[in-house]
Amino acid sequence: MQKNLFFPDGIGFHSYAAVGGCEEGRGPVGRGFDLIDDTDRFGAGTWEKAESEICRLSLNLALKKGKIDAGQISILAAGDLENQCVASAYGLAPFNIPYLGLYGACSTLTEGLIAVSCHLAAAGGDEGLFGAVVTSSHNAAAERQFRTPLEYGAQRTPSAQWTATAGGAFLLRPSHGKARITAVMPGRIRDGEVTDGANMGAAMAPAAADSILSYFEKCGENPEDYDLILTGDLGRVGSDLLREILDEKYAGKKHALSDRHDDCGLNLYDFDLQDVHAGGSGCGCSAAVLAAKFLPAVERGEIRRMLLLSTGALMSPSSIQQKLPILGIAPLVRIEYRA
Amino acid sequence: MQKNLFFPDGIGFHSYAAVGGCEEGRGPVGRGFDLIDDTDRFGAGTWEKAESEICRLSLNLALKKGKIDAGQISILAAGDLENQCVASAYGLAPFNIPYLGLYGACSTLTEGLIAVSCHLAAAGGDEGLFGAVVTSSHNAAAERQFRTPLEYGAQRTPSAQWTATAGGAFLLRPSHGKARITAVMPGRIRDGEVTDGANMGAAMAPAAADSILSYFEKCGENPEDYDLILTGDLGRVGSDLLREILDEKYAGKKHALSDRHDDCGLNLYDFDLQDVHAGGSGCGCSAAVLAAKFLPAVERGEIRRMLLLSTGALMSPSSIQQKLPILGIAPLVRIEYRA
Repeated sequence: MQKNLFFPDGIGFHSYAAVGGCEEGRGPVGRGFDLIDDTDRFGAGTWEKAESEICRLSLNLALKKGKIDAGQISILAAGDLENQCVASAYGLAPFNIPYLGLYGACSTLTEGLIAVSCHLAAAGGDEGLFGAVVTSSHNAAAERQFRTPLEYGAQRTPSAQWTATAGGAFLLRPSHGKARITAVMPGRIRDGEVTDGANMGAAMAPAAADSILSYFEKCGENPEDYDLILTGDLGRVGSDLLREILDEKYAGKKHALSDRHDDCGLNLYDFDLQDVHAGGSGCGCSAAVLAAKFLPAVERGEIRRMLLLSTGALMSPSSIQQKLPILGIAPLVRIEYRA
Repeated sequence: MQKNLFFPDGIGFHSYAAVGGCEEGRGPVGRGFDLIDDTDRFGAGTWEKAESEICRLSLNLALKKGKIDAGQISILAAGDLENQCVASAYGLAPFNIPYLGLYGACSTLTEGLIAVSCHLAAAGGDEGLFGAVVTSSHNAAAERQFRTPLEYGAQRTPSAQWTATAGGAFLLRPSHGKARITAVMPGRIRDGEVTDGANMGAAMAPAAADSILSYFEKCGENPEDYDLILTGDLGRVGSDLLREILDEKYAGKKHALSDRHDDCGLNLYDFDLQDVHAGGSGCGCSAAVLAAKFLPAVERGEIRRMLLLSTGALMSPSSIQQKLPILGIAPLVRIEYRA
C-alpha cells in the first residue's frame, strides 16, 4: 500500500554542492557547479577512486557552504552504481558519520532524501538535527563495469544515455531553509518488459508514471498545483514515453502534467554541442542538476512547488545476460519554497 | 555524531520466516527454518535467480505466518550481495510494495530494521502500519561473483567464511508483538586496515566493537543489562578479535561484554561436521539465524534484552584488486521482550 508521508514544517535543505567532470562543466548547468575537474580524474589513479573523490569533494563543499562540521551530522545516506557501492563507501568513510548505504541505481538521490527525512523525523525532527545525502557516478567507471572500457571505442545506439561524471551532496535540517521537503513517497518496482540494456529511459518511464499518478491520486492534488515535475534521467526516449502515458491518463486536461515535466537528463548536456545521444543518466545526474539549477531556483522563489523523482533502472550485467527485464523505480519527494 | 533513536512502545516483529539451502538445513538451527531446499536451486535455472527465489519465498512465508497481504505493507527494505542487488529487486518486484533498496553487505539486515523502524515512526507509528525487511545470500552466486565458480574447486584459507545460502523476511508493526525493537543506532564505517579478501571477520570486528562501545557510552547502560549481544557474521576470527578488543576496553569488569557475546556466523553451521572454516557469512546469515533461533527465544521470554549487530564488509572485487582496505560497518538494534 503506497503511502505519502507529509512533513508539515518540512525537512529543509541547509546547504548543498555539485561536482562535475569535463563534459558536465561544459553543459548548460556547468556554471552552477561548485567544482569542475576537466581531467575527470579528480587526482585519483583509477576511475573508481575518482568517483570516490567526487563523493568526498561534494560532501566537503556542502559542509563548507553550510558552515557545519561532519561531527554535527547524525545520518548520512549514499549510493552509487559501482559494484557493492564502493565509490560512496571509500569516499565517505573518512567523515566518520553514521552511514546508511543505499542501492536504488539512478533513483538513489530521491531514495536517500526519503530515508534521511524519515530518519530525522523519527529522531524528533528538531532544528538541531542534520542529515546528509550524497550520490555520484563516473562515466568511465560505469562504462567499463556495465559495458566496455572507453578505450574500446564501442559505438552507442541513439537510445543510449550518457552516465554523468558528477555528484551532489545535500545537507538536510528539519524546519529550516527556503527549500523544504514537505512530502515523500517511496517508489514501487515496475517491469516495463524492456530488455534492451541501451534503452534505460524506456525501462524507467513506467515507474515514473506510476509514482506520479499514484501520488496525485492519493493526495488529491492536481498537476496545476505544481510549477515543475522533475524526473531524474529518463532522457529523450523515456521523457517522451512518460508524457505519452500521462497525457493518455489525463486525457481530459491534456498536457496538464506533461507541460510541467522536465528531466535532469535533458538538462545536463547541450544536445547540439555534446554527443550524449538520449541524454544524461547516473546517480550523479539528478544530484548535480538539482544542486546546480533547480534548488537555487526554489530558494529564489522562482519555483514554489515541485516534485522530484529520480528514476532508477534495477538491473546488472548478469541479469541482462540472463535475459531478465530491466526493472524501474521512481521514489518521489515534494519540495516547496518557504519564505 | 552518533545518536541512539529510542522507540518507547517499540517496533514489533509481527511475523518472520527463514529459508535455507542444504548445508544450512543440516546445521544446528536447521529445524528452525520454515523452508529448506536441499538442491540449493529453489527451482531456478541460475544461482542468481535461485537467490531471488529465496527472497520471494521468505517474504511469502512471513506474510502467510502473519496472516496479512502484501498490500498492507507500506515499506519494504531489502538488499543482498549480488552486483546491483538484483537478487532482491527481481525476487521482490512481484509483491508491488513501496521499495527501499539497501546496500550494507552482510549488515543489511540490521540496516534494514533501522530504516524501516524509522520509516514507520515517521509515518505516525500507529499499529495499523506494516513494514518489511528481507535479506538474502546464495553461496554459489557469491562465490562466482566475488571469488571463483564452485566448479573450479578452489582451496579456501582457514580465515575464509562460508557465504550462507539463506534468507529471512521480517514484518514489522509498531507497538505490537512480544519481540520489539526499542532502540536503533546506525553504524560508522571503520577501516581496520585489513586487505585480505579471505579474512572478512578481522575487517568487520573493529566496526562491531565501535558500535557496541559507542552504544553503551551514549545510553549509559551496561553489558550486564543484556542477556545477549549478537553480532552478524564475524565468524571465529572476527569474534575472537571482537572479544579481545572489548575485554581490553572493559578491563575493570573483564568479560562483562564478551561473556554475553554470540555470533550468527558461529550458529549456522556445525564446525565438527561441516567444512565451513571460520563460519557463516552473507546477508542471509544473520537473517536466517535471527528468525530460526533468537527471535523465537525472545518471544518465549528466554531472552529479555538483546543487541543485534549484523556486520558488513564494504568492498568489491575491484577494490580488492586496487589494493584498498576492506571497510567494516555494524549498525545496531536493541530487541526486547514485551509480555
